[in-house]
This record gives sequence, C-alpha cells and structure tokens, in this order.
Amino acid sequence: MTDSPTTRGFPDVEYAARTKLAQDRMAEAGMDGMLLMSEPEVQYFTGFQTLFWQSPTRPWFVLVPANGKPIAIIPEIGVSLMRQCWLDDIRSWSAPNPQDDGISLLIEALSPLKTVGVMKGHETHLRMPLGDWERLMTALPALRIRDATGLVHGLRMVKSPAEIDKLSRICAIGSATFDAVPQFAREGVPLEEVFRAFRREALAQGADGAPYVVGASAPGGYADVISPPDATPLATGDILMLDSGMVLDGYYCDFDRNWAIGHADTTAQRAYDVLWRATDAGLAAARPGNSCRDLFQAMSSVIAEMDDSGGDIGRLGHGLGLQLTEQPSHAAFDTTELQENMVLTLEPSLSYGAGLMMVHEENIVVTPQGGRLLSTRAAPDLPVI
Amino acid sequence: MTDSPTTRGFPDVEYAARTKLAQDRMAEAGMDGMLLMSEPEVQYFTGFQTLFWQSPTRPWFVLVPANGKPIAIIPEIGVSLMRQCWLDDIRSWSAPNPQDDGISLLIEALSPLKTVGVMKGHETHLRMPLGDWERLMTALPALRIRDATGLVHGLRMVKSPAEIDKLSRICAIGSATFDAVPQFAREGVPLEEVFRAFRREALAQGADGAPYVVGASAPGGYADVISPPDATPLATGDILMLDSGMVLDGYYCDFDRNWAIGHADTTAQRAYDVLWRATDAGLAAARPGNSCRDLFQAMSSVIAEMDDSGGDIGRLGHGLGLQLTEQPSHAAFDTTELQENMVLTLEPSLSYGAGLMMVHEENIVVTPQGGRLLSTRAAPDLPVI
Repeated sequence: MTDSPTTRGFPDVEYAARTKLAQDRMAEAGMDGMLLMSEPEVQYFTGFQTLFWQSPTRPWFVLVPANGKPIAIIPEIGVSLMRQCWLDDIRSWSAPNPQDDGISLLIEALSPLKTVGVMKGHETHLRMPLGDWERLMTALPALRIRDATGLVHGLRMVKSPAEIDKLSRICAIGSATFDAVPQFAREGVPLEEVFRAFRREALAQGADGAPYVVGASAPGGYADVISPPDATPLATGDILMLDSGMVLDGYYCDFDRNWAIGHADTTAQRAYDVLWRATDAGLAAARPGNSCRDLFQAMSSVIAEMDDSGGDIGRLGHGLGLQLTEQPSHAAFDTTELQENMVLTLEPSLSYGAGLMMVHEENIVVTPQGGRLLSTRAAPDLPVI
Repeated sequence: MTDSPTTRGFPDVEYAARTKLAQDRMAEAGMDGMLLMSEPEVQYFTGFQTLFWQSPTRPWFVLVPANGKPIAIIPEIGVSLMRQCWLDDIRSWSAPNPQDDGISLLIEALSPLKTVGVMKGHETHLRMPLGDWERLMTALPALRIRDATGLVHGLRMVKSPAEIDKLSRICAIGSATFDAVPQFAREGVPLEEVFRAFRREALAQGADGAPYVVGASAPGGYADVISPPDATPLATGDILMLDSGMVLDGYYCDFDRNWAIGHADTTAQRAYDVLWRATDAGLAAARPGNSCRDLFQAMSSVIAEMDDSGGDIGRLGHGLGLQLTEQPSHAAFDTTELQENMVLTLEPSLSYGAGLMMVHEENIVVTPQGGRLLSTRAAPDLPVI
C-alpha cells in the first residue's frame, strides 16, 4: 500500500508543447481551428480532469485556434475546475439547456474560421447531439470541416517522459494488484467476489480506481474476454482470467493475467506457452522502424503454431494512455510506423478446443532496443492457484 | 458486507415487454425501425452488459424492428456474450476494421426500411464515427431519419418493479457506504486517500463498483462539485462533500453527503438546513400529476431563502437508472409530467459566501404519496466529524 501523495497533472509547459505541436500540424493541414469535444482530447489539451464525463447530459467543447491557448466552451458547472487549468479564455452557459446547449457560443467562436478540424474518423464518436451538430453546420454553411482524427491520434500516440512516468506508475500498481490475486481467488469463491476483491486491492495499491475489470473463470478455459462476473464459484480445473484497466491521474494501464485453479490441463498450458512466446516476439519487434503490421505479424507467426484463424478480437494490441484503448492497432490493416516512446499493449490471443480462447497482455514502451515492459511480465508457465 | 450472490440480469419477459412497448410507440410515430448504438440503450433492449464500452475502438449497433426481437449488429468480440441474451439474430464482423466497421451490415439491415428512429436529441451522442454516419446516409439516400430521443427516454424514465428493486439495492449499498465515512475521513487524511477508502468501502458493501466519486474538502465550503481529489489533507473547518455513483448489475445510485471537519460554521449549517428543507419540499412534490418544473419550483422556493441566483448546476436533480444521469431534468425548462415509478434524484444546491456552494442529493421513486426515499436520508443537521 502506498501512503505517498500523488503528484497530479502536469506543468503548463506540457500542455503548451502539445498545443504548439498541434498548431504546427494544423497549419500544414490547412486548418485554422480544431473543435474537440471528447474527454481524452479535452484533457490532453487543457488538463481538465473530472469523472463528470460519466454524465451524458452536458456537452463540452475546446477550440484549438491557429495560435495561442485553447479556448474552453463549457457548462457553468465546470468553470471553477477549468479555471485551475492553463487556459485564459473560458466561455460558459447554464447547462443543460435543450434550446441552446452551447450552440450559439460555438457559432460565435467558429464564425471567423474557414477550415476547422473535427474528429470524425475511426475510433471516434460525436460527443454532442447529432441534431445540434446538424444545427451548427446549417448555421455555418461556409465552414469547411476536415477530419482531424489522424492529426490528434498522431500526437497522442507518442508519449512525453512525464506521461511515461505516469503510465509506468499505474502499470506498477497493476502488477502489484495481480500479484495479490492468489490471496483472494481460490476454489469456492464466487467470481463476483473475486472481482470486488481485485478492485479493492487495486485501490489499496494506490490506483485512483479500476474502472475496467472483466474476465471469466470456466472449466479448461473461457469463451469470451469482455464479460462481467456472475456468482459462479471458482472450481478446480477452471482457467481464471482477469483483465483490468486501472487509472492514476487520468492514465491507464491495461493488461491481464491467467491462472489455473487447482490444476492446469495440458492444452491450456500449451496455449499459455504459445502466447508467452508470441509476447517475446512482440517485445523484440516493438522498435522504431517497424510498423504495427510488423508487430502483428511477429506475434501472429508464433500464435499460428496453435491457431491460424486470426481470432475474434480483431487485433493483437493497441495504444494506451488517457484511454484504455487508443490508436494504433496491431493488425494487418494498420501500417502506422512505430516511434520511440509510443506506449502500447501487446495482446496476443488464440482460440482452442470447443470455442475457448486465451489472451495475454503486457504494457510496453517502444525503444530502439525493442519493447521495454511497464507491466511486470507474467510468469513463463501458467500459474496454478 | 454482503456475502449473498447477486441475481443478475432480468428474465427475458422484461426485455420483451420493453421491446413491445417501444414498437407500439414506434408505430404511432411512423418508424419502421430504430437504430441504437449507446451503452444504456443497447443494454435496455438486449440485456447485454459489459465494461468493454470503456474502449472507444468498436461501434455496437442494435436495430429494433417494427415487430419481433431486436437485431444485434456487433463486433465478433461480443458475440459470445450477446448469445447469452434473449436475441436470436446476431450479425457480426471482425472489428476493428477501418474500411468497414459494421457499415455494410448496417446498410443491408436498413435498406428495406423507410423511416428509422435514431437518438439525435438532447443528452445524446453519436457513438460511432461521424464520418461513418455520413457514409451510411449517403448509401441510403431514401431513408428518412426521425429523432427517437423522446421515445426512448420516455420508456426508460419509468422503471419496472424489477428495475426499482435493483435501484433500491444499490441505493442501500450507497447509504451504508456513506455511513462508514467518519471511520476513514478525519483531519489529516489526504483527500485522495478518503476517495480510495470510500471506493473500497463501496465494494465491501456489495457494489460492483463506484465509478463516479467526486467531491471536495475546503475551508468553510467548496467551490465546485465535479473535482477529482488531490493530496490536500482534511483540516478542521473544512466542509467535506462526497458525491458518488455506485453500480450494481448495471444500475446506478447517485447521491452525495456533506460533513464538517472538526466544527461547522454557522453559514454552512444554515446552507445545510435550507437544502434539507428544500429536499422536504421536493419529496412532497414528487408525485404523479406534478411536472419536473413543479418539482424544481418547490425546491427553488426554499433555496431562495438563502440564494436566488439559480446556481451553476443548471437543474435540481434528474432521472436515474442505467445511467448516472438520465432524463428528465428538474428545471424550469422541463415540463415532463411525473409518473409513478420514475426514479429520480433530488439535488437542491445553493451558492453562498465568496464563490462557495453546497449540494444535497437523495434518490427517490415517484409514488402517489410523494417521493419514496431509496437512499437513507441525510442527517437533518450538518454532521461534524
């Protein structure tokens, strides 16, 4: 358990550097503004951090201008908190207001602009009512909208040393939490109680929370990897998997662990071994110059020893940071070139037996020497509890 | 601490009834289908429950046809879990796929339809890429899109007895958690440690999680109600507020509590008393026949004893269920008529002193006799720790 207080946020210079780099790329892309509205982007450019995003009621907007600091256009309820961030220009309205939930403020802010970037590509959502978006476009018929997805994700993929420090700390907390699992997961304990104990342990280890805990425990292996728990007790012969996104000061770890309850059967042991070696291959391939596709293929070629179906998960890992899953994707379709200081998950998976699957996951940072582990690596053999 | 396993989900008849009611209203509204894509709606009509929604990578779709069971159009990773739900028709693709993330499946499913409802109104988001939405609309030029927000929110606002049972259980867990706060919140404890202890207690009391914990502790009162914690220790003279959304089997409680650390000053005591009596007024007004506006005015008229500014929060409570905040809103703009079995928060707030505020919150169910408390009501006087 940690008693040391957490140093929260970043100095203003971090946000200023992010904004300047975005503005350089906006200039290259011919954008004179960028309108952002999703939690990770608002946090990335302003430092504004609140769990209040869980309430869908109010929209939040940040406009990154061609020069100078971002402008916040936000509900009154957030003004006090936003004032603690590095921004100077904070515009607000009393929200919720079904007649005008920030739209007239947006029209005013966007009217002088010609070409505005909005995130409308893969892995994005429109975090405002579609009807309000249509109203906004109708009110600004001359405004050109460009897709800013690649620009923003391109910036966010490569982490600063300060971000890597935060990610390293939450990964260490995650590792310590997984190490404690044999203390509370054993035959006879209902899976939902294992989940609760796991979350309590994550908090005791210093996480702000463990918002993402999924997994399963079933005879010989599990059939899916996104389930909530039920009350079924762990039983001898089960394979237990827990996958968790824990968070510290806004940054996530995301990795999993597998255990056998009582004893491990040979097939599960073999699947575990294949995935362990696929992770080895991923670690070796995770260096600048290789692409996500290369990383995918390095892991796939090992997985193919046991399963050449490609699996149900669609990829073998992804980016990690302010979100549990970020771009890029380790998949055949993703040719993103790996860069030093990208933080990634390696997530090899395979199917076996009658509809069973196994997934391994580690968190790494890309270095010229290959992937440097941020998570403490899983045991080389399937651990038995 | 509870050791009794949780009965999860609902019998199929619950989902069938929701779907039938939706289809009756769709027929009245001239819709021959409804396309849903956000977590609460997918869960409401299918029972599909996973924390995997925290990953923004993959879109998920449910089509409610004019007759028969909903149709799931979802990533392969969710098929195994969706098969456990009551649906028969599950269509899937290997996601993520930036070239076609479900769009061709959507086109196929929507092509036979003339008028489709989509949630595009207040308090909604488009949980798919805007670019993909535009592609879909271009591919289906004859399709008419109607706003289904009112239809879906209208159904979800009024809870079934089974839903009220779940809400009642998570509210009881929340109440027990707040009761334990004086055991770990005292002078000298950093606020972030109070938050962690609070979350651990919520889990010990039987919550699946406490995803929403916000609050503050500051001399004489707090300035905002959506902050994350920092490492500042609680100090004599602080007002501590914790507001929490805890969840059990997908259903949320959402209420807060206030305490004075060491001693309570007179102004804070008075603010607390005014809000306690505003809650009384809200409880009396929370019966069928009154509107949300009536409920708002009943509370406002008491709050005006100390503050007639209207506050920064924009409303004095809201709906509660599968989301931390749902429609309706207790605000002057919301004329929604209260109906028996609506589950609501009463959330009177006021501003005082130099930029300070106080918020009370309780959770209730609307009955002909007025609001029936689901949360154990806060103490009538500001408690001192």
